[in-house]
Amino acid sequence: MNSPRQVVDRIIFGDYVLTLDDARPIVSDGAVAIDQGRIVAVGCARDVRGKFTSSTEYSGTDTVVLPGLVNGHTHAAMTLLRGYSDDIPLMEWLNEHINPIEAAVVSEEFVRVGTQLACWEMIRGGTTTFVDMYFFHHETATVVDEMGIRALISASVVDQPRNDAIDIDDQWKQAKEFVLDWSARSQHTTVSPILGGHAIYTLKRKHLIQLREIAMEYELPVHIHVAESQFETNYTQTTYGNTPINFLESIDFFEPHVIAAHVIWSTAQEIDILAQRKVGVIHNPTSNTKIASGIAPIAKYLDAGVTVGLGTDGAATNNDLDMWEEMRLAAYLQKVSTMDPTVLPAKVVLEMATSKGAEAIGLGSEIGKLREGMRADVIQVGLKNAHQLPMYDIESHLVYATHASDVNRAFVEGKCLYNDGEYLTFDPTEVRQKVSQVTDTIRNCQKTLH
Amino acid sequence: MNSPRQVVDRIIFGDYVLTLDDARPIVSDGAVAIDQGRIVAVGCARDVRGKFTSSTEYSGTDTVVLPGLVNGHTHAAMTLLRGYSDDIPLMEWLNEHINPIEAAVVSEEFVRVGTQLACWEMIRGGTTTFVDMYFFHHETATVVDEMGIRALISASVVDQPRNDAIDIDDQWKQAKEFVLDWSARSQHTTVSPILGGHAIYTLKRKHLIQLREIAMEYELPVHIHVAESQFETNYTQTTYGNTPINFLESIDFFEPHVIAAHVIWSTAQEIDILAQRKVGVIHNPTSNTKIASGIAPIAKYLDAGVTVGLGTDGAATNNDLDMWEEMRLAAYLQKVSTMDPTVLPAKVVLEMATSKGAEAIGLGSEIGKLREGMRADVIQVGLKNAHQLPMYDIESHLVYATHASDVNRAFVEGKCLYNDGEYLTFDPTEVRQKVSQVTDTIRNCQKTLH
Repeated sequence: MNSPRQVVDRIIFGDYVLTLDDARPIVSDGAVAIDQGRIVAVGCARDVRGKFTSSTEYSGTDTVVLPGLVNGHTHAAMTLLRGYSDDIPLMEWLNEHINPIEAAVVSEEFVRVGTQLACWEMIRGGTTTFVDMYFFHHETATVVDEMGIRALISASVVDQPRNDAIDIDDQWKQAKEFVLDWSARSQHTTVSPILGGHAIYTLKRKHLIQLREIAMEYELPVHIHVAESQFETNYTQTTYGNTPINFLESIDFFEPHVIAAHVIWSTAQEIDILAQRKVGVIHNPTSNTKIASGIAPIAKYLDAGVTVGLGTDGAATNNDLDMWEEMRLAAYLQKVSTMDPTVLPAKVVLEMATSKGAEAIGLGSEIGKLREGMRADVIQVGLKNAHQLPMYDIESHLVYATHASDVNRAFVEGKCLYNDGEYLTFDPTEVRQKVSQVTDTIRNCQKTLH
Repeated sequence: MNSPRQVVDRIIFGDYVLTLDDARPIVSDGAVAIDQGRIVAVGCARDVRGKFTSSTEYSGTDTVVLPGLVNGHTHAAMTLLRGYSDDIPLMEWLNEHINPIEAAVVSEEFVRVGTQLACWEMIRGGTTTFVDMYFFHHETATVVDEMGIRALISASVVDQPRNDAIDIDDQWKQAKEFVLDWSARSQHTTVSPILGGHAIYTLKRKHLIQLREIAMEYELPVHIHVAESQFETNYTQTTYGNTPINFLESIDFFEPHVIAAHVIWSTAQEIDILAQRKVGVIHNPTSNTKIASGIAPIAKYLDAGVTVGLGTDGAATNNDLDMWEEMRLAAYLQKVSTMDPTVLPAKVVLEMATSKGAEAIGLGSEIGKLREGMRADVIQVGLKNAHQLPMYDIESHLVYATHASDVNRAFVEGKCLYNDGEYLTFDPTEVRQKVSQVTDTIRNCQKTLH
């Protein structure tokens, strides 16, 4: 006699299940069973069906199931400045366009609507976790909580605030309150508060040290831009007589877990520091090329054992939040910059967008793989569009031929957020209307600024 | 009294009409009237409505209308080898994977089905013209004619045929027959026969000269791979004591119009030759980076006045036929390789994919712009998906944020090929089935080869 099957919340089927788990990387004709927000089984469809049953099953014909993508560095609300100013030099872009418009328009409402738009775009494209840094982080967290996507949201401090002249002590106070507030809700939300500092060149040395101390006290990661531009290297060299990573090491900045965005300009000796200190490097290839910051030596980082994830950066320098494009571009840039087509093969790039990305942001034991006991952040991707036919290698296919629009379904913490054209946690028509209203304000401000 | 309005085949509306015509680049709330395969009017919707009427009108709400994209270099049927072998060195890829499988499986049926798949993918993504080079070009032409997309199809010769041991004289004979055959049908088809030679390293000097002579005789362009790899430069240097472009110039190869694919490795003096000889350079950024061929110095070409278009190359080195991704990548690569974010701004990249691309392939007076009298190759792109909101600059938006899946409608020679989910000249389900059958054969061959 068969033992009775366990009733679970959902079962997601796929012609392929890509686990990103070395024990069994690819399961053909597979399934993932989910209950109470966790993965309870991953395996052959037949085996999973034998042990589990659910009233909510998702067919797997012509699909692949994999972990949701992890966007390791973005500024979500900046979607509202998508394409606001392109093809101009970085400092002109920042000082004459982005900083003035942000000073004029960024408000709680701006952050609320911009984050809604960003979450819509990311959910549609299969990104289930993102790491954010922006103003009014409480608003960001509230939207994320409502929409059900997962996010690490930085309570960040900066010595040169763009929109409000609040002093640094108030920023620390607000940061601590934010951390305590959202940590207290951790059982009931997909928001994780973390700490953030903008960059070496926007924070005084003593405040970088203070940031590290608070991170240690609260046992939280710190999210920061590191070695993004030659400007930053020159600044650090002039100010501290050191290169950015060496400078941060000199003040023990890497003592807590650091999520370091960009990390383009590094020496061989600094790469060893990144590896030893287990810094989570987030590579942002579109932003880095579009604003001509440089090509981060990712192949060298991987050789040295550095943990590398991928990010989109904000939509003002990208101009989208599409992790599939980041995967492709990451591979292309390393291949052509090393003149070696074998570096960053598809499998490695997929890891950067999932399991290694999760590790880089400090969530490696919770998400980024399909494994029993891990949080159920799962996506199902269709495989029957013209640009996906035929299919010889599922990993190569996902990296080199799959687009955000091929994503069929997205689940976070076991909850379905997107199901084949339908959004379950928000109304896109409503978001579109709000975006339109806020954009009118931005356009009016733009006229007065220029 | 108003004069009666002229009845035309179709009127396509758009919130924006991007003409790529310097006289009036962007028309807000615009329309394009089409009759008998030609554009008869481009302008404000109100003006066009005042003069023309049609029983077939396409609403323009939340859309932009622009010329169909021109894919200047591909091997269409190679879609059937999409992802067949990735992340391996070029010569191993060619000699141990692609050449053997092509020798085993390429047939008229392979070319027929592979071209159908390629045309499906291109039509869906807004590519309305492509330039092809592959085996069994008569099959390619037949499929193109049936499906209604526009193509320049190379009757190409090679001294080292991969699949058939036909001698070069037979190849010339077949090429001439193909040219005469399809030229005779020119009033009734979207196929234009051209001549092709694979590359300097696969054709003897005397055959390159013969190719030039036949091109002069028939007044047709020649399509050829030029200076794609360091291997090719070394080969040409060793064999002829010259670099590729200088060698071709030494045999007057640029006397007819030459469509030169890749053109990565060039000297400053050779760039002047490209400009003086009005060579149409086709830049293939994805292929060039994915197989680590190098980054073509496109910014320098443009500065020197070289005409540059864009191409996808074949799906075995891309792995898709997506011109939107080529546009983005072209911009990113030039910006980061020159460390200047202002080079290749969106407008210039759009020209490469449309008007300049058309010029590069010798069709500059026929397609690539929305102008009265030109052939009606037009696309309409939707603007209301999450990744496209908000919108400040339509050119930047098309290059940096638009995807193939955003294309709503595609028209070639005034005929609608794709209309909001529906294909008018073929049945995708049928193509998918045929692809599946041919792929089974390929997989079986693959097993015996390895």
